[in-house]
Amino acid sequence: MRRRSVLVGLGSAVPVMGIYAVDASAAATSRQSLERQVRALVDRYAAAWNASDMAAMGALYTPDVHWVNIVGMHWQGFEEVDFAHRALFDSTFKGVPQTFEEIESIAPMPNGGAVAVVRWAVASYTTPSGQAMPRSRTRMSLTLVPHGDELRIAHGANIQIVEPAQRSDPVVQRREKAKG
Amino acid sequence: MRRRSVLVGLGSAVPVMGIYAVDASAAATSRQSLERQVRALVDRYAAAWNASDMAAMGALYTPDVHWVNIVGMHWQGFEEVDFAHRALFDSTFKGVPQTFEEIESIAPMPNGGAVAVVRWAVASYTTPSGQAMPRSRTRMSLTLVPHGDELRIAHGANIQIVEPAQRSDPVVQRREKAKG
Repeated sequence: MRRRSVLVGLGSAVPVMGIYAVDASAAATSRQSLERQVRALVDRYAAAWNASDMAAMGALYTPDVHWVNIVGMHWQGFEEVDFAHRALFDSTFKGVPQTFEEIESIAPMPNGGAVAVVRWAVASYTTPSGQAMPRSRTRMSLTLVPHGDELRIAHGANIQIVEPAQRSDPVVQRREKAKG
Repeated sequence: MRRRSVLVGLGSAVPVMGIYAVDASAAATSRQSLERQVRALVDRYAAAWNASDMAAMGALYTPDVHWVNIVGMHWQGFEEVDFAHRALFDSTFKGVPQTFEEIESIAPMPNGGAVAVVRWAVASYTTPSGQAMPRSRTRMSLTLVPHGDELRIAHGANIQIVEPAQRSDPVVQRREKAKG
């Protein structure tokens, strides 16, 4: 977006146009490539979750992955993240569908990686302590680092969306007000 | 940690010892430097929060910062993150102390940044819709990128700790069991 503004802003400066146009095109290609990589990772994550395939899920992690789940459990390093997910799938999430809704944002990082926010819908389930949880949505922040021509998950932080609270979001309220 | 293992593992390989020792020392210095940078940022964040000083808080963000708050509101870019924090401090958080508890982890990123998980205690407050919230703790995942010799926040995801659920954490349970 920023690149495009520069291009438009210099529309009359013909001598430098070529340079900026090439720059903008390279940025757009790199952006498209990043979007493809994020989408591929999200598709693999969804497939692994819905098949309860913890080996496939583990293949998406870096060796030093950290994860904070929706109730604030914090697992540090591949072994803990993998162990905890296997245990919670055995006790709770096996066969509980998680449906992809949207990649809300992809913010490129200086290392070629990105932070993506992905929105998911999770079917109802029963917690390990026996509490019935209704269908819910989450916003999952994924810090992704390059691994060959793919991305791997270095950090996941998954936040349950408190639906009634969304009406108090100052940015949403401003957007609604602007619509009139 | 991994560097130190290499050093110990090659303890008998005298010819290469020097190289590994220098490597380990450089890694330790770089680790200490990263820890200092994270701690400095966290101290500034705590000071900004507790002074309700949104300009000071904004100085910690990158221009493309994204933030997902404890109820799953997602703000994209400096303008939205700053606007939302100002609005929520006006309505809710002004004068509500947030106390630093611990930097639980610092995972270095390939670009010299890091992802840190910081635990906070937040005093009781009343939500914008009038709901009384008791004292609570959060685990805040901060994706940090280098800016000169400091770190800036590229992404924040703040998860409220559901205290009773912590007893079901498979990693905590395993640790308790190992203690006997």
